[in-house]
Amino acid sequence: MLKDFVKAEMPAEDELKAKLKEERAKLFAFQMKLKEAKLPVMVLFEGWNAAGKGAVIGKVIRNIDPRFFKVATMDREPSEEEMRYPFLYRYIKEIPEAGKFRFFDTCWMEEVVDGVMSGELNEDLYKKRVHSINIIERQLCDNGYLVVKFFFHISKKEQKKRLASLQESKNTSWRVDIDDILQNKRYNKCLEVFEKYLEDTNESRAPWYIIDASSKKWAELQVLQYLNQGIDIALKNQKTNVPILQNTFPMAKLPKLSEIPLEDKTLTDEEYDTELANLQKELGDLGNKIYRKKIPVIIAYEGWDAAGKGGNIKRITEALDPRDYVVEPIASPEPHEKSRHYLWRFWTRLPKTGHITIFDRTWYGRVMVERLEGFCSENDWQRAYNEINEFEKELREWGAVIIKFWVQIDKDTQLQRFNDRQNTPEKQWKITDEDWRNREKWDQYELAIDEMISKTSTAFAPWYVLESVDKKYARIKALKIVIEQLRAALDASGKKK
Amino acid sequence: MLKDFVKAEMPAEDELKAKLKEERAKLFAFQMKLKEAKLPVMVLFEGWNAAGKGAVIGKVIRNIDPRFFKVATMDREPSEEEMRYPFLYRYIKEIPEAGKFRFFDTCWMEEVVDGVMSGELNEDLYKKRVHSINIIERQLCDNGYLVVKFFFHISKKEQKKRLASLQESKNTSWRVDIDDILQNKRYNKCLEVFEKYLEDTNESRAPWYIIDASSKKWAELQVLQYLNQGIDIALKNQKTNVPILQNTFPMAKLPKLSEIPLEDKTLTDEEYDTELANLQKELGDLGNKIYRKKIPVIIAYEGWDAAGKGGNIKRITEALDPRDYVVEPIASPEPHEKSRHYLWRFWTRLPKTGHITIFDRTWYGRVMVERLEGFCSENDWQRAYNEINEFEKELREWGAVIIKFWVQIDKDTQLQRFNDRQNTPEKQWKITDEDWRNREKWDQYELAIDEMISKTSTAFAPWYVLESVDKKYARIKALKIVIEQLRAALDASGKKK
Repeated sequence: MLKDFVKAEMPAEDELKAKLKEERAKLFAFQMKLKEAKLPVMVLFEGWNAAGKGAVIGKVIRNIDPRFFKVATMDREPSEEEMRYPFLYRYIKEIPEAGKFRFFDTCWMEEVVDGVMSGELNEDLYKKRVHSINIIERQLCDNGYLVVKFFFHISKKEQKKRLASLQESKNTSWRVDIDDILQNKRYNKCLEVFEKYLEDTNESRAPWYIIDASSKKWAELQVLQYLNQGIDIALKNQKTNVPILQNTFPMAKLPKLSEIPLEDKTLTDEEYDTELANLQKELGDLGNKIYRKKIPVIIAYEGWDAAGKGGNIKRITEALDPRDYVVEPIASPEPHEKSRHYLWRFWTRLPKTGHITIFDRTWYGRVMVERLEGFCSENDWQRAYNEINEFEKELREWGAVIIKFWVQIDKDTQLQRFNDRQNTPEKQWKITDEDWRNREKWDQYELAIDEMISKTSTAFAPWYVLESVDKKYARIKALKIVIEQLRAALDASGKKK
Repeated sequence: MLKDFVKAEMPAEDELKAKLKEERAKLFAFQMKLKEAKLPVMVLFEGWNAAGKGAVIGKVIRNIDPRFFKVATMDREPSEEEMRYPFLYRYIKEIPEAGKFRFFDTCWMEEVVDGVMSGELNEDLYKKRVHSINIIERQLCDNGYLVVKFFFHISKKEQKKRLASLQESKNTSWRVDIDDILQNKRYNKCLEVFEKYLEDTNESRAPWYIIDASSKKWAELQVLQYLNQGIDIALKNQKTNVPILQNTFPMAKLPKLSEIPLEDKTLTDEEYDTELANLQKELGDLGNKIYRKKIPVIIAYEGWDAAGKGGNIKRITEALDPRDYVVEPIASPEPHEKSRHYLWRFWTRLPKTGHITIFDRTWYGRVMVERLEGFCSENDWQRAYNEINEFEKELREWGAVIIKFWVQIDKDTQLQRFNDRQNTPEKQWKITDEDWRNREKWDQYELAIDEMISKTSTAFAPWYVLESVDKKYARIKALKIVIEQLRAALDASGKKK
């Protein structure tokens, strides 16, 4: 793409000015339409160093009210903190809300290309990164984001000239660093890497636009034209449906909820007490090792109302060092969460390496409550199974342990516990009208949960059912599974060394 | 994808039957909706030999009225005739009309995979093929086609068993050939090639669905489910707009029409007669060489009404052996043409190798008359520049010579010729009310033509302007350009030897 790229001819000064005026006005007018349409716009600026990305971003944003955009400056090494998350994390944190712009002053491309140039990313890792990027770009588009990608192109000679001129003046010489000089020296090698990346990630849903950046105004005009074109089309295409991809992840087979026997899954108080003490001690030890080995752990709890999630989580956390874990209770999304990709609030709550995050309810809300209450379209939740599997796969590839619990009780047990809560003053806060309303939809929920478990119980992140008519039994089972999974992760990490 | 693929569990017999009934009824109901929505559906069946593709196609079509579908059996070597066209040609010929199904019993995947297995396609050619396939699949989707792709998957053991059982009976043994046996022998190698192809062509616009083909009924159910799902989504998405891809082809720079001097482009009758005789003789010789070298030639004429296209074409064809060329006058599309991808009627009129097709008006109608008369949407013609460049690039890669002429006159000259036609009884057939109406839109056309020339004058298929106020001048210029281009192609083909 880059190599074949022949610049379009820059218009003459007068025409350029007239067109700039026109495109600026168009963008200005679009901002309110975007807001009404709730369309989030993500604009990625990539390209050669000193190609003038920052300057053009500065020009573009002049046409937009400051409430409607932000610039994310990612053209820097990830911080030590950020390095403890999946590589996409620091970018995903920055995705725009519905109706707003986010301009990325370099994005995931730069990180990947730098990795290849420095030798940090070998062929295999490069492919993995590109795969992850293509998936997240697809997910963003499928979930209503407009993604526009610009590559700022200048020649080797032009780059050299610009770097020299920056170095000449005291005011600007600090802006040139060794990486810039090096890139110019290795221009041709770098061109190959750019070229390959552009080809590997050029999709019609999120296409690349190569910008002839030899002149600032001309570059601005090209950017505005492509951006306005993209917005125009996206506005016309609001609320289209998206093909449901086949799930090609390896699956673990689980029975339907109704086929899971609950009766004899009980423990005596004595059995419970002994096991609990032993297991918690063991978990405590493992937690320390996990911390030292920097393995991130994600424990996800889903289950019926009053199934005993809270008490179960408590038995896990009691065993852990409070500095190493966090419990994230997930309620309905806040406005700023709702206006982003539905996985965003989970991406941003990930544990860093060596830490444990326990989610009390999870991203599976998408295919349960959001599905049944109509908070998202059918196409949205149908698509979500695969999107969730892709999300968990990404976390797994990063090195995370993922443990997903479904806390299971039967309908009668729930009624008994609801009544008990209702009739016990100090428990009344735990029961709401919503619980009763959800209970009326038990059968619909059961269908949805069976579908959820069968479609998201992957080999790398299977569901575990905790039979919780006897809460003691469920707690011990949970502890055992967590211990088993942590031990397996530690073994695997030991072998890698 | 194939390697990770773990079969979903086949439902029990009763459930399977119930679901089959449901999905069959759904497909039955969809056929009328497709017709109303004018949605063309292209279903590609690929996969292992003896996996039961044909049997499932046979089942699926039972739910569709015979007027609404056809089966294209492509699971055969291309004929000698077909080998003289671009490899995509024989498939594109078969694309469905709006509102109809076309089931491909193997498609371009099979040809490519076979080529890799036999060693005919090296890595570079494989990449080229995949690139061409991805482009044509994108173009089909962008132009409103639903493309659904199934891969029928069986294990090595299952395939072996099926082949053996086919061989056992006299009635079926003819169905097993050496390729089938060989594929089973080289199952693992073939799996790698399948896997790579599936990954290289798995796009969310035209996704792959892997079908567990271990049981016939179960395979049918999976196919019906995915097909119905695809149709459902496509029906909801009718008439969405599509991103306009950047033109990244190398371009040749041409002046605007108004900047082209016409006055002094004249020849005396004597000059004309001498040159004409010499050039036509030369062209005749070159035509023979082209024929023997099996080079396909495409000459495209566009120009103002009364610019002299007909007479110009005549001076070319006079020089050629009538068996070697064909002139295709292009009028408005017939209903069966209109209901397919707009390039289909040109794909199906391509010359075979060694032949010359002269198009009197061309695929550029999309960005001229169709644009100005509103016969397609703005998004359609905006997108067409790149689609046309891709089309011409594909032909060029195949080895074709492409010569595009714009026959240019000024507005006064046109008026003079119109009046002349009007007032000369034997020329009156050449002038219609439409010509006068088009003339009123001269300025709009001029803008569209300038845009067309600037966006489609690629380095590999540039436009040539023929100044035709003096028709003699234009004819001689055309002959010279054709001669020059044919000679260049012959030189290039000589060097390859």
